[in-house]
Amino acid sequence: MCELLGMECNVPTDIVFSFSGLALRGGVKGPHSDGWGLALYDGRAVRTFLEPSACASSPLATYVRSNPIKTLLAIAHVRKRTRGVVSLANTHPFVRELWGRHFTFAHNGTVRGVKKLRTGRFTPIGDTDSEHAFCAILAGLERRFKAYPRRRSDLWEAVAEIGGVVGRHGTFNFLLGDGEHLFARCATRLCYVIRKAPFGDATLKDDDLTVDFSEVTTPDDRVAIVATAPLTRDELWTHGLPGKMWVFSNGGLSAELPSC
Amino acid sequence: MCELLGMECNVPTDIVFSFSGLALRGGVKGPHSDGWGLALYDGRAVRTFLEPSACASSPLATYVRSNPIKTLLAIAHVRKRTRGVVSLANTHPFVRELWGRHFTFAHNGTVRGVKKLRTGRFTPIGDTDSEHAFCAILAGLERRFKAYPRRRSDLWEAVAEIGGVVGRHGTFNFLLGDGEHLFARCATRLCYVIRKAPFGDATLKDDDLTVDFSEVTTPDDRVAIVATAPLTRDELWTHGLPGKMWVFSNGGLSAELPSC
Repeated sequence: MCELLGMECNVPTDIVFSFSGLALRGGVKGPHSDGWGLALYDGRAVRTFLEPSACASSPLATYVRSNPIKTLLAIAHVRKRTRGVVSLANTHPFVRELWGRHFTFAHNGTVRGVKKLRTGRFTPIGDTDSEHAFCAILAGLERRFKAYPRRRSDLWEAVAEIGGVVGRHGTFNFLLGDGEHLFARCATRLCYVIRKAPFGDATLKDDDLTVDFSEVTTPDDRVAIVATAPLTRDELWTHGLPGKMWVFSNGGLSAELPSC
Repeated sequence: MCELLGMECNVPTDIVFSFSGLALRGGVKGPHSDGWGLALYDGRAVRTFLEPSACASSPLATYVRSNPIKTLLAIAHVRKRTRGVVSLANTHPFVRELWGRHFTFAHNGTVRGVKKLRTGRFTPIGDTDSEHAFCAILAGLERRFKAYPRRRSDLWEAVAEIGGVVGRHGTFNFLLGDGEHLFARCATRLCYVIRKAPFGDATLKDDDLTVDFSEVTTPDDRVAIVATAPLTRDELWTHGLPGKMWVFSNGGLSAELPSC
């Protein structure tokens, strides 16, 4: 199994604190030592940092933590291989362009028989069930809409519906970003917290690191954090229900939809 | 104008020495301070390091130079903005998936009226002529072939032909990688050197850095380096002819084709 981390904000925010919590699970506190990746949006484009090796001991992960990049939307993943070899091509998050924007995807779980799903013009590069499922989602979206839907709720419903169809094939917890939304589908384990005023302390579960968010925020800041398991021990995390999908935008929960 | 750097090898090689030469031109020795990018292949997948800021003063560029990643195929670019704002979406190299592999593209020059070119299902994310031209090349390839051509020379000829068509719209020096080949089209300025046995010293033009390649290579190693201008002062660089395209594979020049 893998662990997921997503962040969606209303002001550019760095993900260093939460990523530090995730990184510890990539080879030190957790068994997720088969690779890691971090995707950071800048408008409709995303940049990724990917390594097919343990996050906890990675110089690149250390670089990312030492040189914070602010973003409105980020997706991170630490991998414990279940399907597919350890390689760059199999390292989440996966990225594809659709409608002139980058879509970014990370998956936790295993989806069986996924290769029967149609992927349209999106061809997997690696051999994971996860990348195949991502291609199937994008192909489904492209079949439904010619361009990025003006009515955003149409997009939300389509992602939830297609996610539900793919999810019938196995365990399909995922994070999907499109530069404007963070979609988070729960199959078994997923939780979120909204950090907003009044800000206080947060302490990482797996480390002694504490941040006082009131020192680094303004009263209007809002940051949604989604993770496989709570990353902090002094914040109230909301746990997801199987077959539900959250949509985050502008640092808040915009919708919770059925996805089954 | 921008500067291009490509490397294609028969054994995994790090690009640090040549990238150091290029990096100096990104804000210190050259005027190319509007961004830089480096793409490193691992099989059919590529990872990129991108920054919409000067390369010479970039901590990420320093990281890349201090933590060499070996690869068979790399493309790098330092940017001096001519079209399009300074942003991540406009930072070369650009990457798209086609036929289950990453294609990677960097451009030097300006192509006018490029938005009239058909880009098929590849939609630009940024607003550069370069990314649009890249999308047009991929769309042209997808129209010609349903999958990666078995006869490699069919692919070479198609890239040269489409590159020539796009090149009629302006100055179209480019590097294109597909995980197996490095395509290098010359419109005005491009040169290459093949590093092979007997290896000797090479000294960067813009720095005092010297490498003795005989210390870090075996006799069978072969490395093709392509750049906008010679990076070293003690190697014999072959200069390109306008309207010609080189194809490099396995560290050698596989073909020189007309592309006009």
